[in-house]
Amino acid sequence: MQIAILLYERFTALDAVGPYEILSRIPGAEVVFTAVRPGPVRTEMGSLALTADAALGEVTDPDIVLVPGGPGTRDFIADEPILDWIRTVDAATTWTTSVCSGSLLLAAAGLITGRPATSHWNCLEYLPVFGAVPVTERVVVDGKYATAAGVSAGIDLALDLTGRIAGDRIAEAIQLVVEYDPKPPYTMGSTGTAPAALVEALRTSDLVVQSSLSE
Amino acid sequence: MQIAILLYERFTALDAVGPYEILSRIPGAEVVFTAVRPGPVRTEMGSLALTADAALGEVTDPDIVLVPGGPGTRDFIADEPILDWIRTVDAATTWTTSVCSGSLLLAAAGLITGRPATSHWNCLEYLPVFGAVPVTERVVVDGKYATAAGVSAGIDLALDLTGRIAGDRIAEAIQLVVEYDPKPPYTMGSTGTAPAALVEALRTSDLVVQSSLSE
Repeated sequence: MQIAILLYERFTALDAVGPYEILSRIPGAEVVFTAVRPGPVRTEMGSLALTADAALGEVTDPDIVLVPGGPGTRDFIADEPILDWIRTVDAATTWTTSVCSGSLLLAAAGLITGRPATSHWNCLEYLPVFGAVPVTERVVVDGKYATAAGVSAGIDLALDLTGRIAGDRIAEAIQLVVEYDPKPPYTMGSTGTAPAALVEALRTSDLVVQSSLSE
Repeated sequence: MQIAILLYERFTALDAVGPYEILSRIPGAEVVFTAVRPGPVRTEMGSLALTADAALGEVTDPDIVLVPGGPGTRDFIADEPILDWIRTVDAATTWTTSVCSGSLLLAAAGLITGRPATSHWNCLEYLPVFGAVPVTERVVVDGKYATAAGVSAGIDLALDLTGRIAGDRIAEAIQLVVEYDPKPPYTMGSTGTAPAALVEALRTSDLVVQSSLSE
C-alpha cells in the first residue's frame, strides 16, 4: 500500500508529519514524500526542510494521497503541474485526503465539487469558491475523500483512516505506540471554544504569532 | 531566542515536528535543526528525512534545546559527541527538554540525575539506569528540565513551555492557529486507558506495527 504525501514550498510541517507518524506504521504501508522536484522542501517557517524523495512524475499510482496545507496553498491553487498530478493520481486512489488548507487544493483540482469538506477554520470560507461544501468538523469523510481541519487535526484523520484501512486493533495499537492521549494545557484549540476576541485578534493581526494567518 | 532541535538517525518524526510546530510560532523564536553533520537525517521509518541546517559545533548557545526520541536513542546513548553537545549547551540554556525516549539521552548525559522525568511508556523503566526518577505523567517539569511522554506528548509539552516563556495569551493563540482541539477516535493513547493485553501484545511483538517497539 503506497501512501504519497505531497510537499510544496511553505507547507505546514505538522500537517504532513502528524498523519505520517500514524499512517507509516500500518503494516504494509510504504510512504513516499513527493514534490515537483526531489530534494528539500521548506516549511512555512523556513527553518525546516523535509526531503521529497520522488518527483511527482515518479509517483503515478499511490493507494492513498495526502495533501497538507499551509500558507503555500495560495501559491499553488492555480498551479497546473500540482493540480494535474492530484487529479491524475486521484483516478486510482482508494483514499484522497487533505489536512488544513490542503482541501483547497483538492477543491481547486475539481475533486470535491458538491462534496462536504473541512479545512483550517480560517480557510473554510474559501471552499465554496471552488465548489466544495464547508463543514465545521474536525474530520470529514465523504466517499473516498477525507479532509481534516487545521494542522493538528491530521492526526485524528489518520487514526480514523487507519481504522477503516487496517481495522480498529491496528489503529488502537498505533495510538498507544505514539502515546496519543492528548492533554492540552489550554482549551483554545477551536473557534468553538476560543473567545471570539481571540479569533478576531488573529484574523485581523492584532495578535501576531510567527507565520501569522494574514501574512 | 534560539531553539535547537537535535536530529540523529532513526529519531521519531513527530517527536521533533510536534514541538517545532508550536515553539517556532513564538514571537522572536528562531529554530535551528542540528545534527552531527548537516544535511538530511532519516527518521525511524526511513521514508522521511528532515534537514539539519547546522552541525552541532555551529550551535553553541541555544536558549532552548529539544531532544526527540526514537529507536535511534539506543544507538546514541553512549555516543560522546552527542552527549557532550547536550551537556555543553545545557550549561547556558533556559530550558532543556525532551520528548519520548529523548529523556534517556538527557539522563545519559548526566543532566537529570535525581530529577523526576518522563519518557515513552515503554522506556520509563530505563530512566533509573541513568539516575533519573521515572514519573508516569504526560509532561514533567523540574527546574529548567521539561520532559514529555511518548511521541505526540511533545505537542502538550511545547504548549506548556510556550505559556511559561511567552505567556498564556500567546500559547492560546498558537493553540488556535494549529487548531489543537484533539478528538482521537479511539481511547487507547496511554497504558492507563489501553487494556493490559494490548500493552503486552506490543511489548512482546504479538502485535506488530511498523517500526515496532521491540525491533
